[in-house]
Amino acid sequence: MASAFPESRHAPDSAFAPPPGREEILRAFCDVRRHTEALAAPLTPEDQVVQSMPDTSPTKWHLAHTTWFFETFLLKPFYSDYQEFNALYAYLFNSYYEGIGPFHDRPRRGMISRPTVDEVAIYRSSIDERMKRLIEDADRNIWPKLCDLIVLGLNHEQQHQELLLTDIKHVLFQNPMAPAYRSDLAAPGQGNAPPLTWQSYKEGLYEIGHDGFGFHFDNECPRHKRYSAAYSLASRLVTNAEYLDFVEDDGYRRPDHWLSDGWNEVNNDGWRHPLYWRKQDDGTWAEFTLGGLKSLDLHAPVSHLSYYEADAYARWAGKRLPTEAEWEVAAAGTPIDGNMLESDYLHPVAHDDLKRSPIGLRQLFGDVWEWTSSSYAPYPSFKPAAGTVGEYNGKFMCDQYVLKGASCVTSASHARVTYRNFFPAPAQWQFTGLRLADDG
Amino acid sequence: MASAFPESRHAPDSAFAPPPGREEILRAFCDVRRHTEALAAPLTPEDQVVQSMPDTSPTKWHLAHTTWFFETFLLKPFYSDYQEFNALYAYLFNSYYEGIGPFHDRPRRGMISRPTVDEVAIYRSSIDERMKRLIEDADRNIWPKLCDLIVLGLNHEQQHQELLLTDIKHVLFQNPMAPAYRSDLAAPGQGNAPPLTWQSYKEGLYEIGHDGFGFHFDNECPRHKRYSAAYSLASRLVTNAEYLDFVEDDGYRRPDHWLSDGWNEVNNDGWRHPLYWRKQDDGTWAEFTLGGLKSLDLHAPVSHLSYYEADAYARWAGKRLPTEAEWEVAAAGTPIDGNMLESDYLHPVAHDDLKRSPIGLRQLFGDVWEWTSSSYAPYPSFKPAAGTVGEYNGKFMCDQYVLKGASCVTSASHARVTYRNFFPAPAQWQFTGLRLADDG
Amino acid sequence: MASAFPESRHAPDSAFAPPPGREEILRAFCDVRRHTEALAAPLTPEDQVVQSMPDTSPTKWHLAHTTWFFETFLLKPFYSDYQEFNALYAYLFNSYYEGIGPFHDRPRRGMISRPTVDEVAIYRSSIDERMKRLIEDADRNIWPKLCDLIVLGLNHEQQHQELLLTDIKHVLFQNPMAPAYRSDLAAPGQGNAPPLTWQSYKEGLYEIGHDGFGFHFDNECPRHKRYSAAYSLASRLVTNAEYLDFVEDDGYRRPDHWLSDGWNEVNNDGWRHPLYWRKQDDGTWAEFTLGGLKSLDLHAPVSHLSYYEADAYARWAGKRLPTEAEWEVAAAGTPIDGNMLESDYLHPVAHDDLKRSPIGLRQLFGDVWEWTSSSYAPYPSFKPAAGTVGEYNGKFMCDQYVLKGASCVTSASHARVTYRNFFPAPAQWQFTGLRLADDG
Amino acid sequence: MASAFPESRHAPDSAFAPPPGREEILRAFCDVRRHTEALAAPLTPEDQVVQSMPDTSPTKWHLAHTTWFFETFLLKPFYSDYQEFNALYAYLFNSYYEGIGPFHDRPRRGMISRPTVDEVAIYRSSIDERMKRLIEDADRNIWPKLCDLIVLGLNHEQQHQELLLTDIKHVLFQNPMAPAYRSDLAAPGQGNAPPLTWQSYKEGLYEIGHDGFGFHFDNECPRHKRYSAAYSLASRLVTNAEYLDFVEDDGYRRPDHWLSDGWNEVNNDGWRHPLYWRKQDDGTWAEFTLGGLKSLDLHAPVSHLSYYEADAYARWAGKRLPTEAEWEVAAAGTPIDGNMLESDYLHPVAHDDLKRSPIGLRQLFGDVWEWTSSSYAPYPSFKPAAGTVGEYNGKFMCDQYVLKGASCVTSASHARVTYRNFFPAPAQWQFTGLRLADDG
Repeated sequence: MASAFPESRHAPDSAFAPPPGREEILRAFCDVRRHTEALAAPLTPEDQVVQSMPDTSPTKWHLAHTTWFFETFLLKPFYSDYQEFNALYAYLFNSYYEGIGPFHDRPRRGMISRPTVDEVAIYRSSIDERMKRLIEDADRNIWPKLCDLIVLGLNHEQQHQELLLTDIKHVLFQNPMAPAYRSDLAAPGQGNAPPLTWQSYKEGLYEIGHDGFGFHFDNECPRHKRYSAAYSLASRLVTNAEYLDFVEDDGYRRPDHWLSDGWNEVNNDGWRHPLYWRKQDDGTWAEFTLGGLKSLDLHAPVSHLSYYEADAYARWAGKRLPTEAEWEVAAAGTPIDGNMLESDYLHPVAHDDLKRSPIGLRQLFGDVWEWTSSSYAPYPSFKPAAGTVGEYNGKFMCDQYVLKGASCVTSASHARVTYRNFFPAPAQWQFTGLRLADDG
Repeated sequence: MASAFPESRHAPDSAFAPPPGREEILRAFCDVRRHTEALAAPLTPEDQVVQSMPDTSPTKWHLAHTTWFFETFLLKPFYSDYQEFNALYAYLFNSYYEGIGPFHDRPRRGMISRPTVDEVAIYRSSIDERMKRLIEDADRNIWPKLCDLIVLGLNHEQQHQELLLTDIKHVLFQNPMAPAYRSDLAAPGQGNAPPLTWQSYKEGLYEIGHDGFGFHFDNECPRHKRYSAAYSLASRLVTNAEYLDFVEDDGYRRPDHWLSDGWNEVNNDGWRHPLYWRKQDDGTWAEFTLGGLKSLDLHAPVSHLSYYEADAYARWAGKRLPTEAEWEVAAAGTPIDGNMLESDYLHPVAHDDLKRSPIGLRQLFGDVWEWTSSSYAPYPSFKPAAGTVGEYNGKFMCDQYVLKGASCVTSASHARVTYRNFFPAPAQWQFTGLRLADDG
Repeated sequence: MASAFPESRHAPDSAFAPPPGREEILRAFCDVRRHTEALAAPLTPEDQVVQSMPDTSPTKWHLAHTTWFFETFLLKPFYSDYQEFNALYAYLFNSYYEGIGPFHDRPRRGMISRPTVDEVAIYRSSIDERMKRLIEDADRNIWPKLCDLIVLGLNHEQQHQELLLTDIKHVLFQNPMAPAYRSDLAAPGQGNAPPLTWQSYKEGLYEIGHDGFGFHFDNECPRHKRYSAAYSLASRLVTNAEYLDFVEDDGYRRPDHWLSDGWNEVNNDGWRHPLYWRKQDDGTWAEFTLGGLKSLDLHAPVSHLSYYEADAYARWAGKRLPTEAEWEVAAAGTPIDGNMLESDYLHPVAHDDLKRSPIGLRQLFGDVWEWTSSSYAPYPSFKPAAGTVGEYNGKFMCDQYVLKGASCVTSASHARVTYRNFFPAPAQWQFTGLRLADDG
Repeated sequence: MASAFPESRHAPDSAFAPPPGREEILRAFCDVRRHTEALAAPLTPEDQVVQSMPDTSPTKWHLAHTTWFFETFLLKPFYSDYQEFNALYAYLFNSYYEGIGPFHDRPRRGMISRPTVDEVAIYRSSIDERMKRLIEDADRNIWPKLCDLIVLGLNHEQQHQELLLTDIKHVLFQNPMAPAYRSDLAAPGQGNAPPLTWQSYKEGLYEIGHDGFGFHFDNECPRHKRYSAAYSLASRLVTNAEYLDFVEDDGYRRPDHWLSDGWNEVNNDGWRHPLYWRKQDDGTWAEFTLGGLKSLDLHAPVSHLSYYEADAYARWAGKRLPTEAEWEVAAAGTPIDGNMLESDYLHPVAHDDLKRSPIGLRQLFGDVWEWTSSSYAPYPSFKPAAGTVGEYNGKFMCDQYVLKGASCVTSASHARVTYRNFFPAPAQWQFTGLRLADDG
């Protein structure tokens, strides 16, 4: 997705600025929708059916669900005399919106072979046609409202683009033949990890969160004050080489590094190294990637860590994870730049071959989402979005941790410094790593 | 499969009769292999990946596994300088032969998207080519041995043809859209169930089991004596109408009809009627079939009963299930005729529109497999087949029950009066029903 | 229980012989009830609460349930103006009689601390008092019926005496301190296993099952004909030494010896030897017994084998398990004599220190129950006992195997040649072993 | 426990103040130890064995584990020539200290009948004797260190006193007979809930956490700054009457009130009201208490709520839970007074019959622990205590929520405004309720 993503420049609930124009929205709509299809294109129909665990979804489910989102939140309420495409799709492709109606049991998404990939494509194009007509013809009175919902739908679809890739990676990994998602991925240049330095931040009262101008999710609001004691952050992400030291220092054998729940996972699930690592017969390490099995690049950022692993590594290293406020305060003002989806590596890379600030914090966006020590909780005075879309984020604010930045499979146009990604502590299948923090 | 299946006419371990000729075997090989592919042809690639429960397997797994059987038991030992098609296929498509090597975990067959349907087709055609060459060129000294193994492989593939259909029925049933496997199935004529009469059999010492001449599975041997007290058998299968009486008489609510294990299933899994039945809003009953959702034909034999349900029905009706010996003694000499795979109904039918004996036992073959009260145990002096194929049947002789006859998805050429099918008591996804028996 | 157990000498449903007299029944009642209490006496209250797995029951549950049996089947129907002891006891101490009413979930029996051991003793003595009065005062018209039910209740209690011991053994085994049930058990003399010889039996039509005169369970009837080919039986049970050979020949590592379900247990539960064996640091074997941890007596019969283990051993030894008919035919007429509960060893013993037949089959009764290859099924024309006691046996006739003989914790007065004990194939916590059989 | 608990008046790692004297420690030691035994005294041995779920422990395990704590952390390192009481107790009664060695699987604590209650009493008195000697004789150089550890051990034991009561309540609740722990509990006077008013707090930078002087757990440190926006707190706890309104307004049927994880619990576990409530046949509500089944006192604070229920109620009421900082800031300086263990009600009470501040926040201590919306996380610059006792709190800082105050089964001498109790969101078996909070 080469073109930048058009931002909804007005605050969602008021109107400080005019909403984007119809052409801009139409172009964005077409770009995002097309891009999802491009991501699925390298996959066989067979690949697109499998659900490898309850947390993942089949590719064709992502393709249909993102379409259902537009059908449900835009066409049904706003398209005149809208005829539902297929009443059962509402059951099959509603993810979790209780306010919309009953839905298919999540762990059983992989039991559903129909609609086929081709039928989902017809569903997509049917909805797209009507969405385009709606964008063109909608009454100007409702345009600001529509515009907000469409931009929400596009951001929603970008999230599913990322999930589509992390999910299919997990699916293909189940296969002992270790098939590649694509064999034509861009090849990163050789490179070393940048030297690790520490950036210090003063004690103080800071503001974090979104100010409400331009698109954002409800969970990023309101902007509010946080007090931080003095702290410092590592200038870059932890590398595979560094994490391998932990592994080889019996990191997965010594309970004193681990949270109690993490130690239970280590023992119950037999964790001995990150999910996609595999020790070769010759003693070297390989890693399963979207391009297939590759030698482990020791200079690249370590990825696919659970919160438990990130926390254990930090403890072993004598440091800690940053809080979400520490990260956001430090990252404020940094341009959104890095190894994201557009690089087409689809994997964290060692060499920083895009222009980067020579000093300061590097790799803030791209490569891997960075675990913070902050439990995912509502910001003070948080109000979920009105209506059923209010189920989007708020009801998950329990027993998850916030991740900041963006990963190698996040669209650059989707990243924001105030973005709050969140996953449960045991999750390993996302591109998740860490940046060390310290007091003072 | 119109043509009759060529029988291996000699006893497996001796040579009373010459083995079938190469042309006959070649034709049978091509017929059976082609037929499997014809059964899969109506399915989309997406359909062929899904595994709906640990007991079922994806269609493409059946296609590959039956091919692996020939590769493993014929090509590897007998084809000179044989190059394995793909070393990992041995891991993925070995079902349960410990003697061959490690194999992929059965409940995870649905996690494997590759090889794709097209790649499995290439695997099949590659193995077929070499099998044909082997059939044509094999040394005449080993031909009798080869011939036995090929015929075993073809019978094995016929079993998987049946499983392919029962498995895909279960897969499609998971989908609330209730898609049909085929919409062009043969339509049975309207008809009533034949009247129920009772056939009596005298007390005596009988012989059951296979005599060893012609193809048979090892578990059918040796032929041996069994004593039976006087008994009688119903002239036909229990119908949907009769079973519905049981349902409507609170059959699934009254524990006194049920085995203790069966009653636990009723309660834990919420059984209220046969697996594929569905009560319509208008109070009538429908049934999910390979042709989609259809009105329940009250005159057709009831199907998809577990052993527990068959036993509970019989108890409610004041009768019992027959033993395998009672069934086999009564069926001895009856021609193999009925609603089998070749009818292309793929469902039990009410109207007996094939020629049938006007008197005596009807529906012995076809429509549904008939539960017997006999635990699946080795016949006296049973010896499993030599070598790894000895794992085919013997190691499953525990906690399963014998079913006799054949179903509407069994090839006629596969059916035999001595055939011992077997499934665990809770199994519902096969075409399984019952014929009542009584003492005296 | 020194005195012999008074038999109900009439056939249960007719009256060929007069029923036992009141004094005889009263004495038996007192003996059996007192003996159960004697078995529980060495245990602390704490021991009597624990349920180590769903298959076992707490000691105090056994004490109460056997009492509930008399309250439910004798006092409530026959004692005039009977006042229920405690309405909730009917819920807590009904084991599985659906016809009586709802009951407490079996796997949660160990959650119930009250009634305490002392309160259960009061319950027992209250019921006993009224039972004694009923025995003394009952109208002579109903005496034959009462007599049958009381004798059934006493046999029921004897079964629970055996379970009380096998269950508490399993409970104490959970404790790493391996506490003994009793430290004053009778010590068997040193001895060798008798030499193994083979007894042959001719082909023929035999009768097995109970003839209906004298007490028996419904599942032993009716007496009926069975055909057997010629066979032979080992003169004695398999010993620990012999089974150890199997263990040391990698018996638990080689799948070819095992039924498929058994091999799954071996792998999933990590079986490497019989349940209660423990390899000592010095390389010798010890065994947990009701007397605590003891050196494994190599000459004693092996015990605590599941059906899978018994079957695997027989296969490894090139033999097989006997059928129930083969066992019963061979044992017919043998006196009920051996290492049973009265020996007070409470463990299989090597030395045959009771008088035994110098030739023929030894150890038929006592030491261990002997697995047969016969699935537990109704005998031809079997009818469960009338009324709710018909749930006693019949509803369990599925997926279990018949065991013959008696064990070291069976009362001699409880043993019969026609007795059919039954347990599921994976069960290990009973005193279960095997005698080899062979064809011809 | 009438006498106040002697505080260790020095900061743990330095020595601003002299440690308590030996007599004071000795008296506290005897008081706490004796009190634990007094709490167990009303229970039968049978009661003391049962473990009702993995989260609870048997009473006798608590009695032994608290003793093991002193043996492990005091006697083994400091008592000269200490002979371990029983080497296997270290395995059985170590709760979760990986640094000490392997330990018995938590969910299987209820499988262990020995040591019996009497044997545990002997263990306790043996350790107590030696502890007393250690307290009297220890070298004055190590006294400050000993003193810290003993006070830690006594606080540890007070926590287990609370757990002993909440665990036995859950155990007795499993029994359909609903037995009372004690029938002689103090009876609260009749009373109404105080009127609900709101206390407001200004925006500002506040300090929370323990200053390090006097006893505290490591997780309460260090004292640190937190910024709060303006907020208000309810003057009292939510009552049963108020919560019943939520129940009767279909609170457990409407997903929009619930966190997603909570809604799953509601559906999977069939929650319809608080754990111990029971609707009577006459339509009124009863509640299981430590005194048995009682009418629900509508004026008393609601108890035994999970985090999910507390959060759902607050959402339904249009309010929210307080953060731990909001609670602690508001409670600072309030005397530790309320319905705690010493009241001997062992249940939340309506009538405030102890002297209370007529205005301001009521019920801050006692009745129920108050859920906060704060995930249990390390305070900034938190360092776990040195050595194995560092496992006490730190390793559980994940996926739990902080509770403030104290409950009706907390010793008054154990409560502190800085105290951080923590439980997972689904936990219901503690005395847990809520106080509403609001913005501004």
